[in-house]
Amino acid sequence: MQLVQSISLMQRRARLWAQAGIGVGLVPTMGYLHEGHLSLVRRARRTLGTKGKVVVSIYVNPTQFSPTEDFSRYPRDLKRDMKLCRDAGVDAVFAPRDQEMYPNQPCGAFSTYVAEEMLSKGMEGSSRPTHFRGVTTVVAKLFNIVQPRVAVFGAKDFQQAAIVRRMVRDLNFPLKIIVAPTYREPDGLAMSSRNRYLRGDLRQQALALWHAIKRARAVTAQNSKPVPASRLKAQLKTMIESQPSARLDYVEFFEPETLNRSEKVTRGTHMALAVFVGKTRLIDNGRL
Amino acid sequence: MQLVQSISLMQRRARLWAQAGIGVGLVPTMGYLHEGHLSLVRRARRTLGTKGKVVVSIYVNPTQFSPTEDFSRYPRDLKRDMKLCRDAGVDAVFAPRDQEMYPNQPCGAFSTYVAEEMLSKGMEGSSRPTHFRGVTTVVAKLFNIVQPRVAVFGAKDFQQAAIVRRMVRDLNFPLKIIVAPTYREPDGLAMSSRNRYLRGDLRQQALALWHAIKRARAVTAQNSKPVPASRLKAQLKTMIESQPSARLDYVEFFEPETLNRSEKVTRGTHMALAVFVGKTRLIDNGRL
Repeated sequence: MQLVQSISLMQRRARLWAQAGIGVGLVPTMGYLHEGHLSLVRRARRTLGTKGKVVVSIYVNPTQFSPTEDFSRYPRDLKRDMKLCRDAGVDAVFAPRDQEMYPNQPCGAFSTYVAEEMLSKGMEGSSRPTHFRGVTTVVAKLFNIVQPRVAVFGAKDFQQAAIVRRMVRDLNFPLKIIVAPTYREPDGLAMSSRNRYLRGDLRQQALALWHAIKRARAVTAQNSKPVPASRLKAQLKTMIESQPSARLDYVEFFEPETLNRSEKVTRGTHMALAVFVGKTRLIDNGRL
Repeated sequence: MQLVQSISLMQRRARLWAQAGIGVGLVPTMGYLHEGHLSLVRRARRTLGTKGKVVVSIYVNPTQFSPTEDFSRYPRDLKRDMKLCRDAGVDAVFAPRDQEMYPNQPCGAFSTYVAEEMLSKGMEGSSRPTHFRGVTTVVAKLFNIVQPRVAVFGAKDFQQAAIVRRMVRDLNFPLKIIVAPTYREPDGLAMSSRNRYLRGDLRQQALALWHAIKRARAVTAQNSKPVPASRLKAQLKTMIESQPSARLDYVEFFEPETLNRSEKVTRGTHMALAVFVGKTRLIDNGRL
């Protein structure tokens, strides 16, 4: 397995693979890898077969963080990530440096952005206004650098996956997006690199997200009629905030394809939520 | 030579060419081809050699026109364009339909845009606020569809070429931009599909743009000291508007790499201008 830090080297490799007819699968990550990421790697390998090349990108992308967010303290451990990737059968890790991804020189600073303007409006886009523009920009860059045939994203970032899929369709990237299921701890907490922020009792309180999804599932399963979203939101807010350090940022119900908000919740409606647990902001989602 | 109207067919062809190690050159156009376009085709051929494939895209891109502009009456003649391309040794013409480029269905309307935010502010970007966002979006799409190794743009659209070059650098498109010289009529008028709008006496009045560039060159050549941009602008405005149907939209002086405005004009400063001749808006530019 190789560590590639230069954009031009990665592009040369991609061209050679294309000439050899070798399919490439990309798993874009911000590093500090956990089992969730490794499940995406396995999914890429299964799709490509043994002859394909699986590339994991590791890059904590500054443009998707706002100035008040955790960019500088986001956990990083490239050495550990490299070992995990090697053991998982990854062919190359692409880990570029900021100055190469967002150049200041020569001839003017970085100034081109990719933005999706419909699916990005609600939920995460409403709480984090510049977040998805940063995501679509860096993902477009990674696609142009690694030139994958497939790219695998996790369902935990459900809105992100929908936006990337829309970007691929709209801008005609010649690749397929695969969305792999959310990987959970045995007690249900969705795996996330940010879980490491949860010290002491906060780890237990973070289960509020998963419990809220299960509660919503139970409510829709019990009701033969659609449930008003506003009523269910109020119930879930009360339930979540019964945890002393938990504060609901949003909970939304929507159609999974279009992300159009649902005023009536039934089985098949999708639910997503964001909760501050202490200072840590966690997200989760699921089909009801 | 083949006419390709389907995006997926063009992408399949591009993948086969990549596997065969065949270089592809793209000349993006809005059709109604003239000698200027054909000079870009020759430039692509010279760069790629006889084994490469030259693709001309012909697409009048709606997103780069504002509602008040000439999108619907922009001249179109695919049959004539096809003959010109065939005679020029083009390998494929890519001429997609609007519904495929900007889908409404299924799963929501087109909603992803590529925008360059620095070089796009002045000149054409100031007169036509959404223009360059449309250009960078469609060019990004064409790059993903045709997957060229080189793309050739005309220097007549100087600011556009600078913006596309910046986009390629920022988003890491794996290709090289070539900017080929402006092609002029024997009397100096820059070739443009919009010149066909110039009926009767307007054709002669349209020379005001070229005469202004030549005048600015003479002024900078005569002055050993830098000339204040404001004074030169005023002189050129008077000169241009001495033509009864000509109205200056803007004239700017700037550094050719950064497009940073120059308050002092010397040899090597770049000049660009836009002039309405009757209802037709023409642009031109040149190094002084």
